[in-house]
Amino acid sequence: MTVATKKQVHNYSAGPCILPQEVFEQAAQAVLDFEGSGLSILEISHRSKPFEAVMAKAQSLVKELLGAPDQYQVVFLGGGASLGFYMVPMNYMRVGGKSAYANTGEWASRAVKESKLVGETTVVASSEDKNFNYIPKGFEIPADADYFHFTSNNTIFGTQWKQFPKSPVPVVCDMSSDIFSRPVQVNDFALIYGGAQKNMGPAGATVYLFDPERLGHTGRKLSPILDLKNHGAKESMYNTPPVYAVYVSMLTMEWMKRMGGVSAIEQRNAAKAKLLYDAIDRLPQFNGTTAVEDRSPMNATFVLNDAALEPAFDTLWKEAGISGIRGHRSVGGYRASMYNALPIESVQALVDVMDHFARKHG
Amino acid sequence: MTVATKKQVHNYSAGPCILPQEVFEQAAQAVLDFEGSGLSILEISHRSKPFEAVMAKAQSLVKELLGAPDQYQVVFLGGGASLGFYMVPMNYMRVGGKSAYANTGEWASRAVKESKLVGETTVVASSEDKNFNYIPKGFEIPADADYFHFTSNNTIFGTQWKQFPKSPVPVVCDMSSDIFSRPVQVNDFALIYGGAQKNMGPAGATVYLFDPERLGHTGRKLSPILDLKNHGAKESMYNTPPVYAVYVSMLTMEWMKRMGGVSAIEQRNAAKAKLLYDAIDRLPQFNGTTAVEDRSPMNATFVLNDAALEPAFDTLWKEAGISGIRGHRSVGGYRASMYNALPIESVQALVDVMDHFARKHG
Repeated sequence: MTVATKKQVHNYSAGPCILPQEVFEQAAQAVLDFEGSGLSILEISHRSKPFEAVMAKAQSLVKELLGAPDQYQVVFLGGGASLGFYMVPMNYMRVGGKSAYANTGEWASRAVKESKLVGETTVVASSEDKNFNYIPKGFEIPADADYFHFTSNNTIFGTQWKQFPKSPVPVVCDMSSDIFSRPVQVNDFALIYGGAQKNMGPAGATVYLFDPERLGHTGRKLSPILDLKNHGAKESMYNTPPVYAVYVSMLTMEWMKRMGGVSAIEQRNAAKAKLLYDAIDRLPQFNGTTAVEDRSPMNATFVLNDAALEPAFDTLWKEAGISGIRGHRSVGGYRASMYNALPIESVQALVDVMDHFARKHG
Repeated sequence: MTVATKKQVHNYSAGPCILPQEVFEQAAQAVLDFEGSGLSILEISHRSKPFEAVMAKAQSLVKELLGAPDQYQVVFLGGGASLGFYMVPMNYMRVGGKSAYANTGEWASRAVKESKLVGETTVVASSEDKNFNYIPKGFEIPADADYFHFTSNNTIFGTQWKQFPKSPVPVVCDMSSDIFSRPVQVNDFALIYGGAQKNMGPAGATVYLFDPERLGHTGRKLSPILDLKNHGAKESMYNTPPVYAVYVSMLTMEWMKRMGGVSAIEQRNAAKAKLLYDAIDRLPQFNGTTAVEDRSPMNATFVLNDAALEPAFDTLWKEAGISGIRGHRSVGGYRASMYNALPIESVQALVDVMDHFARKHG
């Protein structure tokens, strides 16, 4: 069994993305022999006591790390946040009711589309006019909406809500790309959900953290597989959960706890973001693509002033062992995703490349 | 890294279940270093070329192993077969149309319930009258149904359809617990689907093998996340797929191919089933719970003639390193699940215990 030397690769993938090296080692061990049972984590029943303990631990770690009130429940489902986009209106929009959305990017747009399939949907704020390069401010959320939905961090465009909107109605938030990167007031949300494959774990699980009291009021006859209240009541075991993705998420959350929790992680993330954005601002060869006040510490998007020099820049970062910083086609240029597990050394490696490039092409 | 000696445990879990030992070793290696990339399979982008190759290989192996016609498509989705129960009527039942189902167990019943939420649903055959201990025969499928749905193998009750019903309408089959255990005529099915966590791989992926020409005719405005035609057109990448579950499924299918394919595996399975069912029939202390002609080679259900001796029997099989043969609460007694990867040596170990028990309590 070969243990890879991770430092050879600076993994800036936008998701699925880097997880802590020690998590990979524990996760590989469990595939061979789960907790000394002689069985692989991949072959044990989800109804076995050892896996029930994993599930319970993963659920309690979500609540502990985010400081969630007791009555909130946690479930891990398959299908991705994209299934969540559909489940949100099905679970929260009354029959004949309506929803309010902020449209701040590709995934927010997809969430809006799903809500429109279910019922009346108002986009109360949008940054589409400037290719989603900022976070809208100063908008009104109608008091008669059943809920307000927004996307806390926009992976593709590199923006993040720094302050969450005040809402007269229950708030639902897709936190796929910045959950566990900073403290949140869970009480302010009816539902927080997110795909695991950024800060929480590997692809294959989606976490839903919700107040069960807010559910079951739509008047809609809901399929049990789409019914968050049902999944909560069944403790995330209504059907076979994505066992391994839950297990690796649990390991990653244990790592977050060892790192000092979400507040300590926020500080690490802020230091990484400062290092990179300072370079973007300091070096005239680079330009950030988003409004400065809305810059995401998770995904930094930037372009070269002279796009003709992209091949030269690409050669440099590839030589430095950097991977995954090509920008999304909707923005172009570059995107450096700096999720929780990315070490600051990787950010320094990128900044060194940028400095080197700037000296060469100054 | 400790490589477990699998032979210490005879894993009869009903699912998630045993996979080949060599698959566990490859699967653990990829968590540490995927194909020498220096990256874990858990941290690479699903849009990266190496994972696109994994997905393409997994899709083609499904078709190759089952001998599917060219035009059939394969997708791997999250959410389990339980999400499939809902997707089936949403994708195949016309608005105002109707469906026909055979109800042969717990999972078939759940599929019926989901169809009833979507539209008119007729149960054309059922074995519920005898606690699902047989497969119904000689029933009619209405020619005006949009599709006929059945469950090829009933994990909990231990029955299997040996011959598939002739149907005047498109056939949809949940093969979760016996896919890849025997050859099938894919052409006879509009859709074959199944949770990975029996013969195909770990929990977290559900495979759908379908003829795209049969889709898109319901007149229903379908959410893209529930739309099989959409998933097929996007080559199973409409949203982030369950990367690791697809990868381990690919490894398991490669193993099946090395084993000689599905016909060779069927013979191995028949030999294992014969060994166990012969013991059940030979030893007066044991009784099979299902109709003999409908016995599943995947899940053998049996009881002790004298239930008071269960603790004595339990002690014996536990001492022999056997795990996971407690029967489901709806049947009681015992259930020995003998999926593709269970070696015949494990079946022999169980038969030895049964013989020993019979001698002791003869």
